[in-house]
Amino acid sequence: MSNIRKYEPFYNKGREKKLAKVEEAYKRFLETKTFEWQPWLYGNPIGKLITVEVEDCPRFGETAYMEMDSARTALMVVDMQTDFCGKGGYVDIMGYSLDPNEPGTTANAIAPIKKVLDCVRKTDISVVHTREGHEPDLSDAPFNKVLRSKIIGNGIGIGDVIPGGGGRLLVRGEPTWDIIPELYPQDGETVIDKAGKGAFLTSAMDLVLKSMGVTHIILCGIITDVCVHSILRELNDCGYWVTLMKDGVGSSDYNNHMAAIKSVKMQGGVFGNVTDSDHIIAAIEAAGLVK
Amino acid sequence: MSNIRKYEPFYNKGREKKLAKVEEAYKRFLETKTFEWQPWLYGNPIGKLITVEVEDCPRFGETAYMEMDSARTALMVVDMQTDFCGKGGYVDIMGYSLDPNEPGTTANAIAPIKKVLDCVRKTDISVVHTREGHEPDLSDAPFNKVLRSKIIGNGIGIGDVIPGGGGRLLVRGEPTWDIIPELYPQDGETVIDKAGKGAFLTSAMDLVLKSMGVTHIILCGIITDVCVHSILRELNDCGYWVTLMKDGVGSSDYNNHMAAIKSVKMQGGVFGNVTDSDHIIAAIEAAGLVK
Amino acid sequence: MSNIRKYEPFYNKGREKKLAKVEEAYKRFLETKTFEWQPWLYGNPIGKLITVEVEDCPRFGETAYMEMDSARTALMVVDMQTDFCGKGGYVDIMGYSLDPNEPGTTANAIAPIKKVLDCVRKTDISVVHTREGHEPDLSDAPFNKVLRSKIIGNGIGIGDVIPGGGGRLLVRGEPTWDIIPELYPQDGETVIDKAGKGAFLTSAMDLVLKSMGVTHIILCGIITDVCVHSILRELNDCGYWVTLMKDGVGSSDYNNHMAAIKSVKMQGGVFGNVTDSDHIIAAIEAAGLVK
Amino acid sequence: MSNIRKYEPFYNKGREKKLAKVEEAYKRFLETKTFEWQPWLYGNPIGKLITVEVEDCPRFGETAYMEMDSARTALMVVDMQTDFCGKGGYVDIMGYSLDPNEPGTTANAIAPIKKVLDCVRKTDISVVHTREGHEPDLSDAPFNKVLRSKIIGNGIGIGDVIPGGGGRLLVRGEPTWDIIPELYPQDGETVIDKAGKGAFLTSAMDLVLKSMGVTHIILCGIITDVCVHSILRELNDCGYWVTLMKDGVGSSDYNNHMAAIKSVKMQGGVFGNVTDSDHIIAAIEAAGLVK
Repeated sequence: MSNIRKYEPFYNKGREKKLAKVEEAYKRFLETKTFEWQPWLYGNPIGKLITVEVEDCPRFGETAYMEMDSARTALMVVDMQTDFCGKGGYVDIMGYSLDPNEPGTTANAIAPIKKVLDCVRKTDISVVHTREGHEPDLSDAPFNKVLRSKIIGNGIGIGDVIPGGGGRLLVRGEPTWDIIPELYPQDGETVIDKAGKGAFLTSAMDLVLKSMGVTHIILCGIITDVCVHSILRELNDCGYWVTLMKDGVGSSDYNNHMAAIKSVKMQGGVFGNVTDSDHIIAAIEAAGLVK
Repeated sequence: MSNIRKYEPFYNKGREKKLAKVEEAYKRFLETKTFEWQPWLYGNPIGKLITVEVEDCPRFGETAYMEMDSARTALMVVDMQTDFCGKGGYVDIMGYSLDPNEPGTTANAIAPIKKVLDCVRKTDISVVHTREGHEPDLSDAPFNKVLRSKIIGNGIGIGDVIPGGGGRLLVRGEPTWDIIPELYPQDGETVIDKAGKGAFLTSAMDLVLKSMGVTHIILCGIITDVCVHSILRELNDCGYWVTLMKDGVGSSDYNNHMAAIKSVKMQGGVFGNVTDSDHIIAAIEAAGLVK
Repeated sequence: MSNIRKYEPFYNKGREKKLAKVEEAYKRFLETKTFEWQPWLYGNPIGKLITVEVEDCPRFGETAYMEMDSARTALMVVDMQTDFCGKGGYVDIMGYSLDPNEPGTTANAIAPIKKVLDCVRKTDISVVHTREGHEPDLSDAPFNKVLRSKIIGNGIGIGDVIPGGGGRLLVRGEPTWDIIPELYPQDGETVIDKAGKGAFLTSAMDLVLKSMGVTHIILCGIITDVCVHSILRELNDCGYWVTLMKDGVGSSDYNNHMAAIKSVKMQGGVFGNVTDSDHIIAAIEAAGLVK
Repeated sequence: MSNIRKYEPFYNKGREKKLAKVEEAYKRFLETKTFEWQPWLYGNPIGKLITVEVEDCPRFGETAYMEMDSARTALMVVDMQTDFCGKGGYVDIMGYSLDPNEPGTTANAIAPIKKVLDCVRKTDISVVHTREGHEPDLSDAPFNKVLRSKIIGNGIGIGDVIPGGGGRLLVRGEPTWDIIPELYPQDGETVIDKAGKGAFLTSAMDLVLKSMGVTHIILCGIITDVCVHSILRELNDCGYWVTLMKDGVGSSDYNNHMAAIKSVKMQGGVFGNVTDSDHIIAAIEAAGLVK
C-alpha cells in the first residue's frame, strides 16, 4: 500500500556525528549570533576572517553575523550587462526605468556594487562576474526561450538585431550584451558566460568555484527575482554559504524585487542571508583586509 | 582593454535556421495566440494535443494558449509532504496556517491538485511526484542547511526528532516526510527524492524526464517561492515548457506566494506560463482525453 | 542489520508498462536484429530513417543495425584540435606519432572523419564539434590538472607558452588549440567548448542537444580512451543512443585505443555500438539522404 | 573565415597567479616527487597527512607520492554488489569467472578492498559505497539500456526476475542488487545509489562529497572499465584528486581491465594516479592514523 522506503535503524553513527557538529555550532550561535567558520569542515582560514552583519536572522527583526574566510570568499556580480541596466540596452528599449535613484531598479544597483567592488579589489576576496547570453548560432538557446522573447519584444527577440545599434539581443560578443563600463571586470577577475538564468546547468561555474576553493559567496547583480535568484538557489542547494547584498540587486518589478529579497530570509535563511553594501565594507575594513 | 570574445560573421547559418523556425512560430502566435506544438523539433504528437489557456500572456491582461502532447506531458506535484502541508508536520508545528480555505496556504493547494490528479489519472499524461528529504545519515544535507534549520526550529532541525511523533525532520522514510494521503502516489506514477530545493543537482530528475520523452510540464505543489520555483527555474533553463497551476501552489507567506506566481509571467513568460486547475481540466476534457 | 531500502510491491504498473515496450522492441530485434526507432517515445521520424550496421552486437562476431532519424541525429566530432593531432601541436611536440597511415594514431582518424563529414554535410544530420580548452585566466582549470600537465611536459603545462609558436597550451583562442583546417567547422555547425575530458559537467552540451531534439549520436574524434570515452559515457548515462565510428577515433596508445573500442561492445553494448565510416556513409546513401 | 574566439591580452593576472602556485608545486615535485597538500587552496590539514606511493608517475617506470589529508579523504568502493561479483548474481549467471584467485576478475578485488576497509575503518578517512540500480518502476532506466540488457540476457534484462531467485535485475531493494556481505557498509559509512555507470549525472554524489569537505579519493570497486572508470572521469573532471587501487578493481575482460588501469597513468596521470592496497595501508600506518 505504500512506496515509503523503509530504513533499519542503521544510519545512526553518520547522523550523530554530523548532528554533534551542528549542535556545537548551534550552541555557539545562541551565544554569539554568528555563523562561525567551521575548521573541522574547511580547515583553518587561509586569509582573514571577516564577519558580516546580516539582517532579519534567524527571525525577522533580529540580527546575526556571517563569518567567512576572505581567501575562500567570492564576490559574485550577476549579469550587470548593458542589456539589463544600461542606456540603449534591452531593458531600456522596453521602456523600464533606469533611474539610478529609484529604489529597486536595475540601475539603482550599480553604485552599491561599484562601492563594494572598489573595496574588495584591495583584498584577497575573489571576484566573479556572470553574463547571460547565447552562442552566436543560438545552439544553446532553447526554442521556447527564443520564441517568448520575440513575442514580448514585438518581433525583436534573442538573436535579432536590436533597433538602435545594440547588436543582436543576448548574443555573446554583441555590444549591449557585455558588462557596463562602470563595473567592467578587471584583469584577475573571472567571467562566467551562462546560457540560462541559472549557471550550474549551462556553464562550468561549479568547477570554477571548486577550483578556487570558494566556500562563501557575496551575491549581487540583476535581476533580483530572475538570474540572481536562480544562481542563489543553485549555490545554496550545493552547500555554498550565500549572503545577498540587498542594495546591490535590482529588478524591473519592485514588488517582485522586494519579495525575492524577503524569501531568502524565510525559515531562518532558506536560501542564505541578506545584508547591504555598507555592512560588507565595514566588515572588510574591520578585518584589516584592505591593503 | 576588453575581454569581449570576438566572433567573425560565421554563425549566420545556424542562427538563421533557428530564427526562421522562431519566425514561423511567432507569426502563428500572432494569429492564434497559441504556443503550438513543434513537429520539426519533437516529431508528431504521440498522444493527443491539448490546449491550455494561460493567463497574462504575453502581457498582463492578455490570454494565450499552450499546446502540448498528452503523451509527452507530465503533471509534476512538488513536495506535498506532511511536513509542509499536513497536521503534525513541520509547518504545522511552526505555527503557520494550514487552513485549506485560506488563499495561498500550503493546505489550500491540496483540493485543486486532487481535482487535477483525478482527471489526469484517466489520461496518458504522466504523473511525477517529488519529495524533499535527506538520507538517514544526513550525508546529502549540507552543514549550513542543517544548522539553519536547527536555529529556526529552536533546537529541532533536519535529522532531529520532531516533538509529537513526527519522526526525524526531513529524513527519508520518516512519517511526516512522506506525501499526504489525499495526494498519495498511485501505482504507475513516479516519485523523485531530492536533497535540495531544486531537483536537477541532487537527483536523477533530468534523466527521468528524458527517459519519459517529456517536453511539457504542468507544475504544482509547495512551497511556491521555494521548491516549486527552484524546480520551475531548472526545468525552464533546460528547455522544458512549464505551465504553473496557480491554485495548486501554496506558501507560508502570502506576498511571496503571489510575487512568485507573478514573476513567472514577466517578460512574456520568463519562466513559463500560468494557468489554474479549471483550465487544465477543461483542456483535457476538450481534447477527449479522459477515458 | 541492513540498510537495504525496502519497497512494497507497488511499482508494478510503471515497470510493467515500460517492460512491455521493451518486450516489444526485443521481439522485433530478434526478428530484425535492428534497434528500431521508437515512435511511442520520440514521435514519428522528422527526417528520414537511416539504418547503420553495427559490429559485434549483441555478441562478438554478430551483426546488428541501428535505426535513427536523420533530423534527430548528430555527428559529434570530439577535439580534433591541432594540439591533439596536428603538426606543431602538443602531441606532436611530445613525440607521439602523427602518421596518418599508422592505425590508431590521432592523425589516422582525420581522413575517415573528413569522409563522413563530407557526406553528412549534404544531409539534415546535425554536426557538433567539441574543443577541450580552458579560459585564458585558467579559472576553469583544476589545480591538479594544470600541475600534472606541467610535470609531464617538463615545465610546459596548461597555460604555458608551447615552444615553437603554438601559443599557450590548452587555452581557448590560442593557435594550436583550435580545430585543424581539414575538419574545420562550417557555418551552420555547432561548437562546444568544454573544460573537462567530458562535456556534461563543464559546458552546456546537454542543453544544446536537447535544444536540437537530438536522440542519436554518431561519435568520432580523439582521444579514444580519453575525451571520446568520457563523452560517450556521459551521453549513454543520459539515455542518448551512441554509435562510435571506430576508424574515426585515435589515441597515443594503441592498446588503450583498441580496448576502449572493445569496451563499448561489452554486455551487448554497455556504452553503445560500434561501426565504421563506410557503414555510416552507406546507410546515409541508402536512405536517399544525400542532396 | 574563422570562429576562433579572440581574446585581448587581458587575463594575465588571474593566469599568472594560478601559474605561480603551479610553478611552486612543480618545483617541490621535482625535489620530492610528491603531489603535496596545498594549504593555500584547501587550508591546513584537518586530520593527518598521509603519503601514498603511486606507480608509473609521472612516467612509466617512475615513482611518485600523493599527499592527502585523512579527514578530507574518502575511500570510495564502487558497486561491490552481488550482481557483479557474487554467487547467483548477474555476472555469475552470465558465466563469467568469479574465481577470487584469478587476476582481474571482479571477485579478485574483494580481498584487497576488505583489507583496506579494515584499516580505513580505524581512521578518520570517510568511506563511501556506491550501488548501480534503478527505481522499482524503472523510471530512471533509459529505454536503450533496458533493451540492450534484455537482448544480451536472452530475454532477462533490467527489471526482469533473474532465474534462480536473485530478484529483479539491477532494481533497488532486490536481493542480488545489494552489496556483498564481506564488504557490507557499516554504520557511519555513506551509500550512494546511482542510475548510471557514472554518478554525477544521476545522484547527489557531488553534493555528498562537498558536504564532507572531501578533496582526495581512493577509488576501488568494479567494473574497472565500466562504472569505476566513469566515476573516475567525473571526479577528475570536477577537480578531485583520485588514486586508483589497482588490486581493488576487477572486470569481466582482462585486457579491458588492464588497459583501463593503464589509461589513468597516461600523460602523467590524465585521470589521476594508481597504487595498490599494500601501499595504501602502509601510508595509513606510517601516518600513525590507525587507532
